[in-house]
Amino acid sequence: MINIKRLTHRLEELAQIGKTPNNGVKRFSFTKEEQEANKLVEGYMREAGLKVEYDVVGNLIGTLAGSEDLPTILLGSHIDTVPDGGKFDGPVGVLSAIEVIQTLNEQGVKIRHPVKVISFKDEEGSRFGFGMIGSRAVVGTLMEEDLLRKDEAGITIKQAMKDAGFGDSPLESAKLDNIKAFLEVHIEQGKVLERKNVGVGNVTGIAGPLWLKFHLQGLAEHAGATPMDERQDALVGASLIIAEAEKIAKRFPPAVATVGKIAVKPNAVNVIPSDVEWTIDIRSTDEAQRNEIEQLIKQYAQQVADERDLTLHITELQRIDPVQCDPEIQAMIQESIREMGEEVVSLPSGAGHDGMQFKDRFPIGMIFVKSINGISHNPKELSLDEDIEKGANVLYYTLLKLDQA
Amino acid sequence: MINIKRLTHRLEELAQIGKTPNNGVKRFSFTKEEQEANKLVEGYMREAGLKVEYDVVGNLIGTLAGSEDLPTILLGSHIDTVPDGGKFDGPVGVLSAIEVIQTLNEQGVKIRHPVKVISFKDEEGSRFGFGMIGSRAVVGTLMEEDLLRKDEAGITIKQAMKDAGFGDSPLESAKLDNIKAFLEVHIEQGKVLERKNVGVGNVTGIAGPLWLKFHLQGLAEHAGATPMDERQDALVGASLIIAEAEKIAKRFPPAVATVGKIAVKPNAVNVIPSDVEWTIDIRSTDEAQRNEIEQLIKQYAQQVADERDLTLHITELQRIDPVQCDPEIQAMIQESIREMGEEVVSLPSGAGHDGMQFKDRFPIGMIFVKSINGISHNPKELSLDEDIEKGANVLYYTLLKLDQA
Repeated sequence: MINIKRLTHRLEELAQIGKTPNNGVKRFSFTKEEQEANKLVEGYMREAGLKVEYDVVGNLIGTLAGSEDLPTILLGSHIDTVPDGGKFDGPVGVLSAIEVIQTLNEQGVKIRHPVKVISFKDEEGSRFGFGMIGSRAVVGTLMEEDLLRKDEAGITIKQAMKDAGFGDSPLESAKLDNIKAFLEVHIEQGKVLERKNVGVGNVTGIAGPLWLKFHLQGLAEHAGATPMDERQDALVGASLIIAEAEKIAKRFPPAVATVGKIAVKPNAVNVIPSDVEWTIDIRSTDEAQRNEIEQLIKQYAQQVADERDLTLHITELQRIDPVQCDPEIQAMIQESIREMGEEVVSLPSGAGHDGMQFKDRFPIGMIFVKSINGISHNPKELSLDEDIEKGANVLYYTLLKLDQA
Repeated sequence: MINIKRLTHRLEELAQIGKTPNNGVKRFSFTKEEQEANKLVEGYMREAGLKVEYDVVGNLIGTLAGSEDLPTILLGSHIDTVPDGGKFDGPVGVLSAIEVIQTLNEQGVKIRHPVKVISFKDEEGSRFGFGMIGSRAVVGTLMEEDLLRKDEAGITIKQAMKDAGFGDSPLESAKLDNIKAFLEVHIEQGKVLERKNVGVGNVTGIAGPLWLKFHLQGLAEHAGATPMDERQDALVGASLIIAEAEKIAKRFPPAVATVGKIAVKPNAVNVIPSDVEWTIDIRSTDEAQRNEIEQLIKQYAQQVADERDLTLHITELQRIDPVQCDPEIQAMIQESIREMGEEVVSLPSGAGHDGMQFKDRFPIGMIFVKSINGISHNPKELSLDEDIEKGANVLYYTLLKLDQA
């Protein structure tokens, strides 16, 4: 059994770094805050008995040697956040994994497989519009060209990486070989576990996010002197498309489509908007369904552009395949939950996670911890100590089962 | 007859100050660029034989003494711009007025009334979301509390004014008394004159702009893990309202409604927007009609908020009455156009102008110069030299008629 006091104390301590005025957390990748948070987590890893290193992209990796010459088991999550996020999304997984290793060592439990606990670089993608940087690097799918993406200040990933003291070896050096499996604890970020009245759940798979950027261009003209029927108003066009995207997604539950980010030019009270750029995030565990939603939204957008004499450009930011969790690992997680006397609930993840990057590489398993009110990516994000404790213990017992398999 | 070469040379020279990368102009009030532009215009005023001064809010005023003790005739316009505007909106009026005075002096034409040429401070309202600062000051309706409005960097009008070297007397000191009338030349910013194939027109009145700020608040939740039917997405709500505002305005031609500015929080690809703020600019020459449009949009917005469990707040930024141009001055303008051998076209102004502030204070008259393609508030804004020449000459002859009246 893990030490919940130590775990929640660390969660609180980590939440102080990058704290926002309304008690949220903002830690973007490669920033001062994230570097400071890494230092703190590095210390926890050492206390847990892990040998600490950073790879070329800045993944923080703590290694525990195994007693036999076997493939490595990966545990981990991330510590970066959305602009005004909570303190659980990511840290619960990183700190639970560290806690599990510290418990093993304290109790003198020997493990056959080497274990690596990884705090993956930039899972959220909030800074560069491109997430899961660290997990891509670990399987060798992060490309040099990906590093040319820029944040809002025009800084590339490559530059940010350098400024933070990383990036001085080839990207391939981050690739990890001979991996047995990956396990992650994460908060649910939905309301399924709460409705079922359980604290933890077994994840069946992860819905793949497709991120598109739309750019609609019209003509900036005087808001007072341009008759309504002679306008090329890019914002009215965008509004029709954003409203329709919701309608379309609602026809395919439980798929979701979200416009989270928008920018208007010239953005003045008395000028008709000439340019609107916005992102759309479409997710489904079923790829064919996701493709259909994508096509319907694109078709409608083109129709609006044609009718209103606007120019439409759509760029793909990322397209990640949905991934299924490994059936054998799911069985181990379910058994661990059952052994703890809890009801077993299995559910898909609507949110994306680093594990998606490992599709077709090695098996993954995920454990969800109940989110109060399903709220996440928000300062009000909350998971209870008792549920975090259950999640870490399920990870502990699943690791032991996996080590014996 | 005015000197068009000198006038267009000055227009070009002024357009170099605050030039944007795409050949537009950005001169916000009280900035370095606007101060530099004022210096240039001050020099033109002196060349024209005007006595130059600045009032407490930074209005640049050039005075020509009259030969008799009579009320003052005001001429003028503005030199501030929208974020990426053109070089004609405002400067054509200021420089035409200076050109008219210089022509009078060169030709030894004596004038009975004193004349003041004013370059009014911040007509556009682009910096503080509050326009016509200078013209309000001139009639004493600019209040100390108005100066507490802030720009996007959080700087108040009061502070900006101080930093630019103004604001050291009471606001009332800017008030001008004993005014006979105000005349302004301005580009049309619409396509009426172009369609009628004339270079200048007589303005019948100015549609009053009503500026409202909408704030819609929902809940920021995870874009992947929140089912479509459980969302409080402020951006989808805003999109429905923005699209409907266009529909409503289209039912009341030639009234217009424009959403020009929008801001979303937290503005991340994978977070449902919790907060959207946007402005709406509603204009009509008929106040009752404008009120009806306002009510219909507000009602629809409240309905969307109620249906979607969102919170709606609406703030009034400015509400300016429509104003009619003086019939006698209109007759003088029409006669001047006719005497020049041009067809007389009369039209309302959909755009707001400083003259609106003078409603019920003293009579106003306005002369419009044709805008190519009706484009304004845009780097592509264009008026031809021959039409600017006609506009300045109509101002010249109208001033002479008004001086005799």
